[in-house]
Amino acid sequence: MSDRGPDVATSEGVSRRGFLGGLGAVGAGAALAASGGLAACSEDTSAHTSGGTTGQVLPFDGAHQAGIATPAQDRVAFAALDVTTGDPDQLAQLLDRWSASARAMTQGSPVPGAMTDQLAAPADTGEAYGLSPAKLTVTIGFGPSLFDRRFGLAARKPKALAELPPLPGDELDPAFVGGDLCIQACSDDPQVAFHAVRNLARQGTGTVVHRWMQLGFGRTSSTTSQQLTPRNLMGFKDGTRNITSDDAGLMDGHVWVGDESDQPWLRGGSFVVARRIRMLLEIWDRNMLAEQEATFGRTKLTGAPLSGHKERDVPDFTARGADGQLVIPADAHVRLASPEHNRGVRILRRGYSFTDGIDPETGSLLGGLFFLAYMKDPQQFVTLQRSLGRADALREYIRHIGSAVFACPPGTTATSSWRDHLFS
Amino acid sequence: MSDRGPDVATSEGVSRRGFLGGLGAVGAGAALAASGGLAACSEDTSAHTSGGTTGQVLPFDGAHQAGIATPAQDRVAFAALDVTTGDPDQLAQLLDRWSASARAMTQGSPVPGAMTDQLAAPADTGEAYGLSPAKLTVTIGFGPSLFDRRFGLAARKPKALAELPPLPGDELDPAFVGGDLCIQACSDDPQVAFHAVRNLARQGTGTVVHRWMQLGFGRTSSTTSQQLTPRNLMGFKDGTRNITSDDAGLMDGHVWVGDESDQPWLRGGSFVVARRIRMLLEIWDRNMLAEQEATFGRTKLTGAPLSGHKERDVPDFTARGADGQLVIPADAHVRLASPEHNRGVRILRRGYSFTDGIDPETGSLLGGLFFLAYMKDPQQFVTLQRSLGRADALREYIRHIGSAVFACPPGTTATSSWRDHLFS
Repeated sequence: MSDRGPDVATSEGVSRRGFLGGLGAVGAGAALAASGGLAACSEDTSAHTSGGTTGQVLPFDGAHQAGIATPAQDRVAFAALDVTTGDPDQLAQLLDRWSASARAMTQGSPVPGAMTDQLAAPADTGEAYGLSPAKLTVTIGFGPSLFDRRFGLAARKPKALAELPPLPGDELDPAFVGGDLCIQACSDDPQVAFHAVRNLARQGTGTVVHRWMQLGFGRTSSTTSQQLTPRNLMGFKDGTRNITSDDAGLMDGHVWVGDESDQPWLRGGSFVVARRIRMLLEIWDRNMLAEQEATFGRTKLTGAPLSGHKERDVPDFTARGADGQLVIPADAHVRLASPEHNRGVRILRRGYSFTDGIDPETGSLLGGLFFLAYMKDPQQFVTLQRSLGRADALREYIRHIGSAVFACPPGTTATSSWRDHLFS
Repeated sequence: MSDRGPDVATSEGVSRRGFLGGLGAVGAGAALAASGGLAACSEDTSAHTSGGTTGQVLPFDGAHQAGIATPAQDRVAFAALDVTTGDPDQLAQLLDRWSASARAMTQGSPVPGAMTDQLAAPADTGEAYGLSPAKLTVTIGFGPSLFDRRFGLAARKPKALAELPPLPGDELDPAFVGGDLCIQACSDDPQVAFHAVRNLARQGTGTVVHRWMQLGFGRTSSTTSQQLTPRNLMGFKDGTRNITSDDAGLMDGHVWVGDESDQPWLRGGSFVVARRIRMLLEIWDRNMLAEQEATFGRTKLTGAPLSGHKERDVPDFTARGADGQLVIPADAHVRLASPEHNRGVRILRRGYSFTDGIDPETGSLLGGLFFLAYMKDPQQFVTLQRSLGRADALREYIRHIGSAVFACPPGTTATSSWRDHLFS
């Protein structure tokens, strides 16, 4: 499952599933866990058959962090946190603990620590006991503010890491902007994703506090083909022209930080731009189909560019109809967001839909796209958003109401941790 | 799938999946839909294999509404709406339209209406095209306020339908209280559940407005056994002693409205009580295991009552330990919520976990249990909540922050609609 060494396996490698299968019925209060061991048990014999499917566990360690090139899981829980301690050692220790816990959870184990000591709070909050990790990945990022004077990290700040400039379409709610750190937990199971974020935040009590959090949903891999491009809440297929993460050339060219970075620690990492984009759904829904399709430059049902017939057809931005007009309008989203229109700039999108109920001020739906995108330099996003913001037909129907940027370090090995990137 | 007649099948029975399989590649702007017909198409040949699994489509019509006795799907989107028109005919027409649309969506079709008319807004918003209904059920309820003077319905108001009295534990946020109508959409796919609520609300433009909405998550049927009792966000199994909905005797005795009702139209229906219950998770997480288990009266990992060894063991509320103390404490949740402690009162719980990010006032997690429960008289809930509210050890860790009650009519036939219960 990963290349972690036997020493780590001794202290962390007892999987939730292994225990479920091996323990059988245990009475209340039974002392299950060896010192420092992890245990979950159930007398429900169905439990140990539940999560063991191969493919439900993704490696944690590797050259890159999981959760970036990983094909998008169905659900995301994304948290931005602020560091409240002024003590660099405390932060460093938390990063150690976080990577060990994230490694354990992604492999199907509870967070390390006592689980059945009656006189202690359980190390793991428990809501994911007996559940498969369902492809859980946990990805960390460091915000620009982490590199201020507090922790002596100014010299490690990547030049490319800065708060995003004001951009067209911004109507930012300060409650959803920024953060010293981010945690992206993706899984096919929302309870597992939430559990991961909650347990890491809990371990940070006294060191970090929540700043904002967003849940999102997207694919539905249990019922649909992985090949099907998911639809956004405007009803259009979204991501047809996205980078396919198994294209190493595109990933190296656009997503993974390389030798161009001033910070060697970041090479093999990436930057994530998070934008909470509200869709004005009631207004959108009143549009006639022709206008909806002209806005995107695509056919709604098939996803084909208006110049083509199939979803994967490459848009022909020069095609003109019998009336001499551009088939894909000059202000169509697919045109203005295209690499052809942006000097080749591309990003790896990893967005999810969200809905947070009703806007109390207007009574309208509060939902849209929780846009996550990975790139080797946040300027890629700035370039695209400026291009879109000037003329994009879609801007009439969306508002950017949250924003943050983080530098995501490269991956870990079995004997390294998220601490090492900053404090080695 | 249902007992709807061939006339209905002609106008609505063309399934999304049938179209996906049958149409193949279609160019932009092709006129797909016959007048009044429904169409979705895709050139992606994987699509028509995606949603066709038998068991993904549940019947809409029946003696009872689906979504009550139906085994709980993984996700819920629950909306409370207020009627803004004063015209009873407009409300009646909307109820007709809603039941036709709900019937279509649950059977895997878009909402009835034109989908490819370039000069019209598509009848369906589109984000569920190509997705399986994933066991979608859509359930309607009528709030006490619907029976005021506006629509001449006062004589149809069930005596048992009234706003809940103030209850112990109430810290209600007016933004999450009440509603003239409710729509409960449950599906294994959150995008499908959201799509259903959104499209019905959209059809009601000018007749109804949103009051509040809640998304919830629960089981994870794609990765776990259906037999596994889900855990709440406190990490405990939740629902072990719930009514099993295939027990007709319990359902008739506690859930379905019978001849005791003063309103014949409601017989075969039920009442739903919705409570948005915040869990003070950070406080809970600091508790030692012994106190957590004493609070529930159950073992955390196995779910067994403290008096027993297995989850399904019947709690022994009289058992005492060697120290003479009750094994299940006097204030344990499992005791105070039990039928044994409440003169046999039982309800059918259908709750989901929720999390709505961070409470901006405190910086703590805003999440907990979106409690939905069905019963033949809301007084059953009042009885239980008063019992719990006085002494329940759990009350220290929860707050009821939203509340509503609705009367849910019985089921429809292929030729009847939700209108008939009120306006026949």
